[in-house]
Amino acid sequence: MKIDGVHYRTIWLSKDGWSVEIIDQTKLPHHFVIIGLRSADEAARAIKDMLVRGAPLIGATAAYGLCMALRDDPSDVCLDATYAMLAKTRPTAINLKWALDAMVAAVRPLPLAERVKAAYARAAQLCDDDVEICRRIGENGLAIIRELAAAKPGKTVHILTHCNAGWLACVDWGTALAPMYMAHDEGLPVHVWVDETRPRNQGASLTAFELGRHGVAHTILPDNAGGHVMQHGLVDMCIVGTDRTTASGDVANKIGTYLKALAAHDNGVPFYVALPHTTIDWTLSDGVKEIPIEQRSPQEVTHMTGLTDEGEIMTVQISAPGSQAANYGFDVTPARLVTGLITERGVCSASREGLLSLYPERADG
Amino acid sequence: MKIDGVHYRTIWLSKDGWSVEIIDQTKLPHHFVIIGLRSADEAARAIKDMLVRGAPLIGATAAYGLCMALRDDPSDVCLDATYAMLAKTRPTAINLKWALDAMVAAVRPLPLAERVKAAYARAAQLCDDDVEICRRIGENGLAIIRELAAAKPGKTVHILTHCNAGWLACVDWGTALAPMYMAHDEGLPVHVWVDETRPRNQGASLTAFELGRHGVAHTILPDNAGGHVMQHGLVDMCIVGTDRTTASGDVANKIGTYLKALAAHDNGVPFYVALPHTTIDWTLSDGVKEIPIEQRSPQEVTHMTGLTDEGEIMTVQISAPGSQAANYGFDVTPARLVTGLITERGVCSASREGLLSLYPERADG
Repeated sequence: MKIDGVHYRTIWLSKDGWSVEIIDQTKLPHHFVIIGLRSADEAARAIKDMLVRGAPLIGATAAYGLCMALRDDPSDVCLDATYAMLAKTRPTAINLKWALDAMVAAVRPLPLAERVKAAYARAAQLCDDDVEICRRIGENGLAIIRELAAAKPGKTVHILTHCNAGWLACVDWGTALAPMYMAHDEGLPVHVWVDETRPRNQGASLTAFELGRHGVAHTILPDNAGGHVMQHGLVDMCIVGTDRTTASGDVANKIGTYLKALAAHDNGVPFYVALPHTTIDWTLSDGVKEIPIEQRSPQEVTHMTGLTDEGEIMTVQISAPGSQAANYGFDVTPARLVTGLITERGVCSASREGLLSLYPERADG
Repeated sequence: MKIDGVHYRTIWLSKDGWSVEIIDQTKLPHHFVIIGLRSADEAARAIKDMLVRGAPLIGATAAYGLCMALRDDPSDVCLDATYAMLAKTRPTAINLKWALDAMVAAVRPLPLAERVKAAYARAAQLCDDDVEICRRIGENGLAIIRELAAAKPGKTVHILTHCNAGWLACVDWGTALAPMYMAHDEGLPVHVWVDETRPRNQGASLTAFELGRHGVAHTILPDNAGGHVMQHGLVDMCIVGTDRTTASGDVANKIGTYLKALAAHDNGVPFYVALPHTTIDWTLSDGVKEIPIEQRSPQEVTHMTGLTDEGEIMTVQISAPGSQAANYGFDVTPARLVTGLITERGVCSASREGLLSLYPERADG
């Protein structure tokens, strides 16, 4: 998407043809800094230190990390060692292993002399595939926004989202935000309510940054306020992303998503979840019972990082000293609260039947 | 309640017998600072700058402000001027006007020479009355906690609360927190989930401070996490305060309360609201439609204040520069989501019938 009129992806090949450039997301939203990655080690550090985040982008960064390692040494020994080193940078991100496996499958059968070229081609394809999947999710979600806009001609369509499922988490477009970008780009009057998304504030920092720089109207909302705006008719629909969706349509997403789904249900607001098929876990059927929920550092709750008046990034303690804090990373929204799933193949109900209607090849599984 | 073993109220007469001392709540939770107020002007500034906050405490501070003014000049002219000056410090706090009216009613009929003594007596009574009302709310709520504890012998009772309805908002005890203090003081195993309460963080700062210093086990939770802990059976009951309750039992409270009530309802967790009768608005019957919701400064959302490693209190910007933010102060929880109202006269259902069973004198109104 665009930053002040210039189109960006989150990762791209440098002019030298072999190193890559990324946006340092640890500096967002306060500073927009592009940095180069010139080795597998630098790619690993970028993933580990969260200069890049979001499952698809992590996968793409690891893929290019492998390319750079093979450029120095295309041997199996180097391939295996680099795979192992990159795979452990964010051990919970399934997409990371998937991307590395795809790279190894493309490279290992080839003679050493052909490996580097094939690796770069596969990494580029991996990025393009992600963009295409997100673009299709965007088009399928756009159809819903068009309907809502047609039902209230001349008036703004208000869409609420939680956390960041935007282009910064992917290579381009994003998942939940893709329909909003497309609606905006074709001139539909959209306004996005952006949940702050405590404790890491991905909404107020990343989603608000994305939307603002692309020119999409939006307002940051404390996570507490979503129920109030829905009670008062200020939200036409919700679209969120997901980290894992069960075969029965239960949706694990950033902590707090469940509360918004409850409020949407209580007020008759459609609640959609946007996802690529890769986030569907066909082996699970009860999300609340079966999806493990990561607990993260209490420091993310007790402290907050921001920009001082002097332009310095600083961390301050915001909670009572000595008090414990709990930090659950995700919650699970039961399928009964989800109006529909927006995938790259179309929109379906949040149910086994709905998912199988789009992915019939899974019916045997 | 206690701070490190020493009993405090939020306001008390100094040893000199005429000035008062308060806890400077703008410095909490990082610094515990007691300051003296030696004139009506200082009392007014303490209210306006939120060194004291919470409706009952604001009323008590204004009452003592009037006492100090009368000490210099007990005339009607001074009485009226001081009333006007104090009444406008926080124009939305109904309790402030109520307390000042009570003071004037006690003082005006008297000869000048008797006014100062009568004023101090009335202010002290006002404080004692508030303590007694909160104590009774505490006892009525305690009975519910005792039942929950009896149903799971030897196990901890987990109570979730939102915002700060504790002793720091009152003179002592608090409303929602009073039952928890009493349960703790009589040795029941209680643990409190403290909602952070963005954007002003009254939970993570004030409630966590109160509970921690009194020795009550507690854990700060991002506002987003309440649904998750209820889904997983980690909450036995919720108790919150309220700023205004309709005659039909709808409850206006700090923004985000409604979302927790929805989650409690969805998971079969009892959801109680603690209130003195003074917060019941007998003229209203539809809270969502009729209770006006204050919108506050977006800066409370986009910026955050905390303590640096060097011990300085500093404010940092946490959101994307240029992005707007909305800041609704309260939301309304419909009576259908409220298990019961805990008042100083007992516990009743959140309904007109329930409230009239405790306040039959209102049946004519």
